[in-house]
Parts: sequence; structure tokens; C-alpha cells
Amino acid sequence: MSPEQFREQGKKLIDWIADYYEQVESYPVLSQAKPGDVRKHLPEQAPEQGESFDHMMKDVEQFIMPGITHWQSPNFFAYFQSNTSGPSILGELLSAGLGVQGMLWATSPACTELESHVLDWLVDMMGLPQQFKTTEKGGGVIQDTASNALLTALLCAREMKTNFGTNQLGGCPKTVAYISSHTHSSVEKGIKIAGIGINNLRIIAADENQAMIPEKLEEQIQKDIEEGFIPFFTCATIGTTSSNAVDPVRAIGEVCRKYDIWLHVDAAMSGTAAICPEKRSHFDGLELAKSYAFNPHKWMFTNFDCDCFYVSDKSVLIKTLSILPEYLKNEATEQGAVIDYRDWHIQLGRRFRALKLWFVIRHYGVEGLRHHIREHIQLAQGFSQWVNQSSDFELLNEPPFNLVCFRYKADDAFNKQLMDTLNKGGKIYLTHTVLNEQFWLRMSIGQTSTERRHVENAWNLIQETAQQLKK
Amino acid sequence: MSPEQFREQGKKLIDWIADYYEQVESYPVLSQAKPGDVRKHLPEQAPEQGESFDHMMKDVEQFIMPGITHWQSPNFFAYFQSNTSGPSILGELLSAGLGVQGMLWATSPACTELESHVLDWLVDMMGLPQQFKTTEKGGGVIQDTASNALLTALLCAREMKTNFGTNQLGGCPKTVAYISSHTHSSVEKGIKIAGIGINNLRIIAADENQAMIPEKLEEQIQKDIEEGFIPFFTCATIGTTSSNAVDPVRAIGEVCRKYDIWLHVDAAMSGTAAICPEKRSHFDGLELAKSYAFNPHKWMFTNFDCDCFYVSDKSVLIKTLSILPEYLKNEATEQGAVIDYRDWHIQLGRRFRALKLWFVIRHYGVEGLRHHIREHIQLAQGFSQWVNQSSDFELLNEPPFNLVCFRYKADDAFNKQLMDTLNKGGKIYLTHTVLNEQFWLRMSIGQTSTERRHVENAWNLIQETAQQLKK
Repeated sequence: MSPEQFREQGKKLIDWIADYYEQVESYPVLSQAKPGDVRKHLPEQAPEQGESFDHMMKDVEQFIMPGITHWQSPNFFAYFQSNTSGPSILGELLSAGLGVQGMLWATSPACTELESHVLDWLVDMMGLPQQFKTTEKGGGVIQDTASNALLTALLCAREMKTNFGTNQLGGCPKTVAYISSHTHSSVEKGIKIAGIGINNLRIIAADENQAMIPEKLEEQIQKDIEEGFIPFFTCATIGTTSSNAVDPVRAIGEVCRKYDIWLHVDAAMSGTAAICPEKRSHFDGLELAKSYAFNPHKWMFTNFDCDCFYVSDKSVLIKTLSILPEYLKNEATEQGAVIDYRDWHIQLGRRFRALKLWFVIRHYGVEGLRHHIREHIQLAQGFSQWVNQSSDFELLNEPPFNLVCFRYKADDAFNKQLMDTLNKGGKIYLTHTVLNEQFWLRMSIGQTSTERRHVENAWNLIQETAQQLKK
Repeated sequence: MSPEQFREQGKKLIDWIADYYEQVESYPVLSQAKPGDVRKHLPEQAPEQGESFDHMMKDVEQFIMPGITHWQSPNFFAYFQSNTSGPSILGELLSAGLGVQGMLWATSPACTELESHVLDWLVDMMGLPQQFKTTEKGGGVIQDTASNALLTALLCAREMKTNFGTNQLGGCPKTVAYISSHTHSSVEKGIKIAGIGINNLRIIAADENQAMIPEKLEEQIQKDIEEGFIPFFTCATIGTTSSNAVDPVRAIGEVCRKYDIWLHVDAAMSGTAAICPEKRSHFDGLELAKSYAFNPHKWMFTNFDCDCFYVSDKSVLIKTLSILPEYLKNEATEQGAVIDYRDWHIQLGRRFRALKLWFVIRHYGVEGLRHHIREHIQLAQGFSQWVNQSSDFELLNEPPFNLVCFRYKADDAFNKQLMDTLNKGGKIYLTHTVLNEQFWLRMSIGQTSTERRHVENAWNLIQETAQQLKK
């Protein structure tokens, strides 16, 4: 593609994307495609001869768009958001254009230094413990997902507890880890990957607010120690996936400190709320964490993938994951004056993801980000009040952040039918969870362009649909 | 950012990127920045108020660009390439614009179905075993990197050998894996991560062409079995990182089959060469592999990240990595009619990476891709002939693909000085390796825009620089 063609097609694509955002509400939020609907339109073999970009974009419109679920619609209330924004999309574009590899400092110093700098900015912006700064003993790195951040934390914990012996010898079948029944499924996956085994994963009971009970944690730890097990890792969550529950980080952290257990705090979705000082009480005790992760790609207008992962001691992380083959040796690394981020995660290669995060923070400014997050939280509080005031619906609990769990006062089958009907209608998209053996609808309010009118319309539609189904 | 601002700034950025590619040869290929040079220009705190996009782009030019190593320069001959192209950059832009999550089929059917389809296309385009198709027993998935593909393969192998017992029980300290001394460092990292331990990683001797010796592999396996170890995994490489050596896949595969060992074949860089039928002899025996990976983000004009990972039996992969929390349950998954790619890799979330690969394949067509790959291989062969004909330089061996290892006929210190002088000069960038305890320069020819004149200029510069240093 010549530079001239790139200019022409690139500008058309920029317009296409702008048009898409202007029209996004006209699409059904949840794709109405059936299995195989997309593939059946695609030719069996790749073309031998090159095709025009216009032809490809026509196929995008005809065959791809009907198979898209519109995560960027203001009427997307499902799962957790994966929101984005103009400056983020342009940051991703610039990153793709420059096409640099940031595996080592030397392979593009700006890629590493901007990342360290922006992650240090976030520590101050969000009132996180200073120990997480790269200029201190700890440090931050952009990981792709909270799953990989969790796995990295788990490996550090495993190696700390076994004196870096598992890396060398393999296997540590007596080490045990602790989560609550509401911790994200990535811990279970990580426990399998790291060779710990899910038999060595203890599920600690949660209270009526779905928060881990620290006393139960300590009881289990004592029992394990008595039985010859070696407690090594606990994951606490600020804003669980099911219901946005907040584990008591300080109390859990004190138990972990007492028994020398690595505490990882997962705030993948809700971590962004720390930009609002009035929400920081939920983060109390975070200085007791050895590692922490939150996802700007969920709620900070930065497109996927962008997870910010912090450790309180970077030397442990580097010792856990470092490799140094001859072909990666270079002067800057040997002098020890730089960060080589390839030692901070599972992968070797990495792209220039700090650009989009830098663009987003600078475009909005800290005040702008805080304003939007407050708005989402207020919308969620408003929605929960409407639910509370309705005689037909019930609320799980007061939402600490931007997720409302609610249900129609009927059986599970009715609530599932209500959800399916709403989603098939295409006007809104929301998902569910099961809590206390009951089916609950989840209303997550965090899309970049979601306004009060979208939430009001959603509530009206939910009520009307329930009424119609009741008939 | 309003749609109008997005249109304006997006089009300016498209022009900026096109300008960049037109001027890329005017930059020093290797960034001349010293540690801290980038950070020192950045304000200590994030801005409270939003800033203009123009302001950010000015900072990109002033502070970021001097810290960029120009991976997209036609004079970049270092490491392995991480090349890209116009249609790929636009594919990444479209993916960022749509901002969909492909963790489940249901969360955007097109994201999953296009990926399966394009990966099946590649099987035919490259003459890979049919067993790797998603429409057969196996299947393909886009991973971010070959490191994660390798880790995934390692986990499948571990679980197959332990009857999915390590996932459950943890630890398997008697399982042993096999690589050659030229296998990529990601295996060592993966072996640590998966809890195998590097004491259980056997390094098999390589022959004079840096290829694993299958007889030595079998000897070691027999020795391990006698000593009570459980052989479970071998990684063979088509195109090693140091020197592009090719392990004898068929002979290794037959040994693996005999002892029921999972064979993973890593062709991260050189896999793209299979698009040329005359290069397929290097891939002989690939049907014996349980898993295979190659990176379009290295040599197929598709920007990072895009690794294609194939397995011969998808049920093993899914059983190894599957998790199913309540909040991810949905009708399509429960009916079993679809692929949910979240079970095919470490992460849960995933972006729409198939778009850029689809665009690249369609833009070039199979013939176009083949043409460019052949050109790179011819340039490497030409360069190796020049080295061979020179009385001052020596060649490691005939390059099977596009990497030439060579050295000046002098000691290691001189060769290192030669490399450093060339790189600091900024006109070309190349890196090194150590083979047979000697320092070798690596000339990797695979940039999208590298032409004969760039390789000629590089060779002239290398000769002149060596002459000057000799004085």
C-alpha cells in the first residue's frame, strides 16, 4: 500500500469510525447472529491476487457488522465495560504506525520510559501507595489483562515462598492459596497454570455483602499450617465481578502479613474509582499488598488491552521471570540503569501501549476523568433507587461503584426470560450472575457515552418488558 | 473528544503516519537516547485539566521520537523483524474503533468466526497439515506471542501426561522436557511458569548446523525413563533465533511418537516461509506435531501482536484451560455449537486481531505475500554470497531463510566494536549472537520496505566501517 493509498484509505476509515460512533445506537447491542452466520459468507480459500481496500470495507459492512456485539454502545450494560475513547483509539493507531517492540529498554527507550512515567502518574492520581512507583522499590507495568497480572503475582508469590526453588526444581504440592467464592475465575486458571493445583486453592466464606471474612481466612490458614501445608498467596478483590463486592483489604492484609503470605489485590473494574477521593475508603489497606492490578481498559476510556500491574518490590518480580539469552544482551541492560519490561510479564514482545493511556489522561485531565467516573457512579445509584422504589423489583445491595444487581420478584426462570427477551430485542444488553443460589440481573454502567437518558430508557424498557411477560 | 474532533485529529494522524513512513530513513535506526532522556522531559504530575491533541502530538515529536528505535525502517536488520504494512495498521485501527471483546463467541460472533476462518485459510496457504483446521479435530487461534503459544502447548502436554492431574493436584516434579541449546528462551520461561522446574529441562546437543540431533534426543529420553522420569514435551524449531537453524522435525516427531511425548514446533520467525512451496521441505514432518506456532507479526506484514497457534486436538486444549464461572454462561456456549476462544489461551479478554490479518492477506493476496517473502530470501542469499566472496569476512552457513550470520575475520572484541560502531552511526541496526563460543553478527532481512539498495548500502557500510576500525 503506497503512502498515498494509506492516506486515502486511512482518512476514509477515520470517517467510517466517526460515523459508527454517531450511529452506534441504531444497531442491536447484542449481535443477532447465529453460529456460522459470519463464516458462511467468507470464501473457502484466501485470494491469490490482492484485493482493494474498498472491497474489504464493503465486506466489513455486509458480513462482519451483523456479527458485532456493540461494546461501545451507550446501551451496553453487560459484563463489565471495555470502554474506549477518541484519544485512546488514536493512541492505538499511533502505536500501530510506529510499530516498535518494547521488550527491552534498548529496543525503544521511549516505549519503556513513557510507560514507567505514566504508571507513576497513576499512583499519585489515584492515591495508591508510593511503594508502587518505579522510582521507589516497586514499580508498575502495563499487562494485557488482569488474568496475566494475577498469574504474574502468583508466580512471584510461589517463588518467594519456595526461595525461587520451584523455578529450579518444579512442583510445590503443599503450597496453598486463598480466595473468596467471589474472586475472579482467573485465579483458578492461574493456579492450574502455575502448577499449584486447584486442590490447593482454599475458598474462604464471604459475608452477606459477598466480602471475604478475614476471621475465616485466618482460621483456614491455621488449619492448613497444622496439617503441614504452606500458605503462600491470597487474592483480595475491590469490586468483584459478580456484584462489585469489596473485600476488607486491611484486615486481610494484616492476616497475610502475620503469616508471611503474598497479598494480591485485584481491582480490575473498580480500581478506576480511586481517582475519586471519596471512593478511596474502599482501598484502605492497599499498602499491605505486594501486588495490585486495575484495568484502564475497563473503565478509564482506554481501549483493550491495558491492565496496570504494580508490585511493591520489583526485584522479586524480575528474579521470578528473568531470562537473558545472548541475542538479547545489550549495554544498557548490563549497566543496570534501565527497566527491561520483558522481565515483568509472561510474554517477551510488547507493543507501545503507554501511548494510548498517556493520550487519555492528557485529553481528559485528572478532573475530567473524575467527572465521568462520578457520573457513572451517580447513574448507578439512581438506578438502584428506582429499583428500590419499585414494588416489583428487588435490589441485591447498595452499589459501592457502578454495578447494580437486581431481580424481578419472581422465580429464576422468569428473570432469565426477562433478560433473554431484553437482549434479543437489541435495545439494551445486560448479563446475569447467580448469588445466594438466585439468578440476578447485572446492570453495569460505565460506557464512555452512556448518559442519564440511556439509563432511564433501560429502566423503562426493563419494567415494560417484565409487565408484558407477566401477562 | 467529539466525532468532529476525532475526524480532524484522526486524519491529521493518518497523514503524520504516512509522512513518518516517507521519512523513516532520515532517523537513526537505533535510538541514540541515554537512560532517562525521555522521562526528564515529562511533567512530574498528570495534568488536572484536559490538554489538546495538537499539544500531545507536539510532545510526541519532541520527546518521544528521539527515544524510538525505528523497527519499521528498511535499514532495520536487528533481532527478528516485527514488520507491518498499511492494511495491517488500518486493521488495528478498525479493531480499536469497534472496541469489541472476543472472549466468548457470544460477545461478538464475527470476532471468533473471522479468526477461525482466517486461520483455516492459512493452513491451505502454507501447506500445513489439515489436522490443524478448526473444521477438523484441531484448530487455530491468534495468541499475542510465541511465548504464550509455547506456554499453552506446555500446559496441554503437562495435562495430557498427568491425566489432567496437575491442574487438580499441582506439582509434577518427575516430568521432563527436551529442547536444543538453540531453542528460544521462552521455553525456559514457560518451564518455570508451569511449575516444571528448569532442572527438568534437558538440553539436547545440536549438530554443526545448530540443529537438534534426534539420536541424542532418544538417548536422553531412554536414560530419563530408566531413572524414573516421565518425558512429556519436546520443542523443535524451524528457524532458531540465533541462526535460523532448522531442527529435523520428522525425525524428532518420530521419536516423540514412539515415547508418547507432545511435540511443539516453533516457527515464530520462519513459519511465514511456508507460503513458498520451495521452502516446505524444511517443514517436513509437521503432521507429527501436536502444536505449532508462527508469527505473522514478524514476517507477514501484520503488526504485533499476532501469533498463529495451532493444535491437532482442540479438546485437549479446552480441557486444559477451560473455566466457566456463572457470569460467562450463555446459550451458544451451552449448546456447544461455537468456539469460545477464552479457553484457548492464558488470558480471558481478547481483541479483534483477525481483522488486521484478514486485511493483510486480502491486500497482498497469496501471490503477493509469496513474492515479498521470496525477495527477502533472495536478498539474504545475495548478502551471504558477498560475505563468502570477501576475504575479510566469514559466513556461518548458507542461510535457509532470511537471516545471515557472519563475522569479520578477527577476534570477538573487534566484531563487537564493529557492531557498536555501526549501530551508533544510526544508518543501520543489527544485533549479534554467540555460536560455538564466537561472536557473530546477525543480518535479518525482512522489513516490509527493505529493497536491494538497502542491503547493498548496508554491506558497503559494514565493509567500510571494518576497514576504518582496522586502521
